[in-house]
Amino acid sequence: MKTLEWIGDTVGHLRLIDQTRLPTEETYFDCHTLEQTHDAIRRLVVRGAPAIGIAAAYGVCVAVAEADRSGAGGDDADARTAALNAIDYLATSRPTAVNLFWALDRMRGVVAGEQDVAGEQVGSLADRLLREAIAIHDEDRQMCAAMGRHGAPLLTDCRNVLTHCNAGGLAASELGTALAVIYAAHAAGNALHVYADETRPLLQGARLTAWELSRAGIDVTVLCDSMPACLMREGKIDAVIVGADRVAANGDAANKIGTYALAIVARHHGVPFYVVAPSSTFDMQLDSGDAIPIEQRDPREVSHAFGTQTVPNGASVYNPAFDVTPAELITAIVTERGIIRPVNTANVLHVLANFAERSDSEG
Amino acid sequence: MKTLEWIGDTVGHLRLIDQTRLPTEETYFDCHTLEQTHDAIRRLVVRGAPAIGIAAAYGVCVAVAEADRSGAGGDDADARTAALNAIDYLATSRPTAVNLFWALDRMRGVVAGEQDVAGEQVGSLADRLLREAIAIHDEDRQMCAAMGRHGAPLLTDCRNVLTHCNAGGLAASELGTALAVIYAAHAAGNALHVYADETRPLLQGARLTAWELSRAGIDVTVLCDSMPACLMREGKIDAVIVGADRVAANGDAANKIGTYALAIVARHHGVPFYVVAPSSTFDMQLDSGDAIPIEQRDPREVSHAFGTQTVPNGASVYNPAFDVTPAELITAIVTERGIIRPVNTANVLHVLANFAERSDSEG
Repeated sequence: MKTLEWIGDTVGHLRLIDQTRLPTEETYFDCHTLEQTHDAIRRLVVRGAPAIGIAAAYGVCVAVAEADRSGAGGDDADARTAALNAIDYLATSRPTAVNLFWALDRMRGVVAGEQDVAGEQVGSLADRLLREAIAIHDEDRQMCAAMGRHGAPLLTDCRNVLTHCNAGGLAASELGTALAVIYAAHAAGNALHVYADETRPLLQGARLTAWELSRAGIDVTVLCDSMPACLMREGKIDAVIVGADRVAANGDAANKIGTYALAIVARHHGVPFYVVAPSSTFDMQLDSGDAIPIEQRDPREVSHAFGTQTVPNGASVYNPAFDVTPAELITAIVTERGIIRPVNTANVLHVLANFAERSDSEG
Repeated sequence: MKTLEWIGDTVGHLRLIDQTRLPTEETYFDCHTLEQTHDAIRRLVVRGAPAIGIAAAYGVCVAVAEADRSGAGGDDADARTAALNAIDYLATSRPTAVNLFWALDRMRGVVAGEQDVAGEQVGSLADRLLREAIAIHDEDRQMCAAMGRHGAPLLTDCRNVLTHCNAGGLAASELGTALAVIYAAHAAGNALHVYADETRPLLQGARLTAWELSRAGIDVTVLCDSMPACLMREGKIDAVIVGADRVAANGDAANKIGTYALAIVARHHGVPFYVVAPSSTFDMQLDSGDAIPIEQRDPREVSHAFGTQTVPNGASVYNPAFDVTPAELITAIVTERGIIRPVNTANVLHVLANFAERSDSEG
């Protein structure tokens, strides 16, 4: 299963597993145009903060390839125009996950002639843009693996863990964020059982997390978002582990709607609450989570679930896609650079500065 | 709109609005047989603790009428056999709402020749059973109105209230429990806006509460069960008000799954949390909520919502229908006999003893 894959060379295209069709259909969605790529991100064909960033980076390459095929010429000037247009347009696809803007900024740097990741300035602009997108994709794989390594020891004494939404391989390059920790624990011989919140309205937990964990041979039980509290009261949840879409400098973390309530309920029962996110998910421009923009989505996601109308016409609908969990409710944040604990601005700065070493000492 | 209605005389039948078809279809389900009545309760054609009790009482009359029509004779001996069989069978329909057992106990008392509610022993056993069922129905109407009167002053300074599941006219005889309070506040000129949790898995909040509040001209906004916490953080919820399916002697209250998490989240934000339940919902045999039996329902309610499979075959499903909110998280319980506050065994006993006076002084 490949969440994202670039097919071909600089005039190639982006292939995505269509996450709107899982778990009953495993089909792929090919993005040959900028518009298809924007649409795929907006409609959640691809979703999850790291995956959105990777898709947007490739989306710039899709736009350059599209311009080339359309006969615009394929020289660097045309590629530059197509890329800058794509960067601006893709930035409008979704507002909350900061990885989108982080990845587009890296692509903008390549257009601007900044030294690319390989330290080279060789090849056409189209070459260099594709090399950068592939580098973003590769680095994400490494970050997922590192988060797994750092986080797995946190679950050593756990038997049952709860997760919300999908922070797995479908949300990133390969292993995911929160699920990378679970996969690493599992690989280390800790046979965890995972409770997966179904995650209304779009049921990413039921449809995606349960699907990918089952495929990986990990026991998973799906429950409604309203149900974890009674399991915690019965002592049946040892830890909660989730991803994030944007983390502010103080550690406040935006994630799928419902995460904040889960953190409150976990605190009430003394259950540790872990967030797992790569450095690309941190927005150090924001002092706290109050400034994180929260996407409001189509009311029909709530009112017409899966084609059936469940809300009468006379009623309004409230449908924010994310909420913000304040740092004080987060036991620790696992990053590819180490573990932030306790969660506060000083520790965020300290661990994120830890790049050169990629220290494993805290794991 | 009539939630429950007895059609005809002692050989009549029970008519229910089919709550599985709302909000898009307003159809009625006629129970001519005991089996149809049992099925209607089990499938949630009729649901809500008070309504289940009323339906079960009428269900005994349905069984007596069925025996009469089947040519069993229609004398008191036949009616007695049919009624006792029906009482035992209907008690197996759902385990949590104690109103079911309370109503069936009253019907059993009539069979046993106890003095009926009118203080008379006139007519055939079939007559007396139908009179008792109608009395249970009528008393519920009065209890709903009294809960509304007692509870409305609690919402005087509120503008936005949140409710979970459906504790309205569809859950009882007419006004409901929690919604009776909202209706009474509305009638008194307090134009509340109601947030209705959709209430997975069967979406009684979206389908039923939003439908009946809209019909009553009350502004309602539907949201997913995972969303109230962020509204509370923004100060947009002034009170939470819910019904109950069984309340123990100490005030611990079983209600629709998700209520307990909501109570924790409300406490975290300092939002008052009210439970509204008639005396028929109290189970004074149980010292605390730990002993309340919790119904586990079909996993397909979660995995195949509205005909679409959303959970992959490899995953398990957890689907309890109720949870228990401990008394210490409940600001007050509104009953038809007055308000229990603070919620503890002594105050439960005190207010429930308050029957003769039906004191309005606390309202």
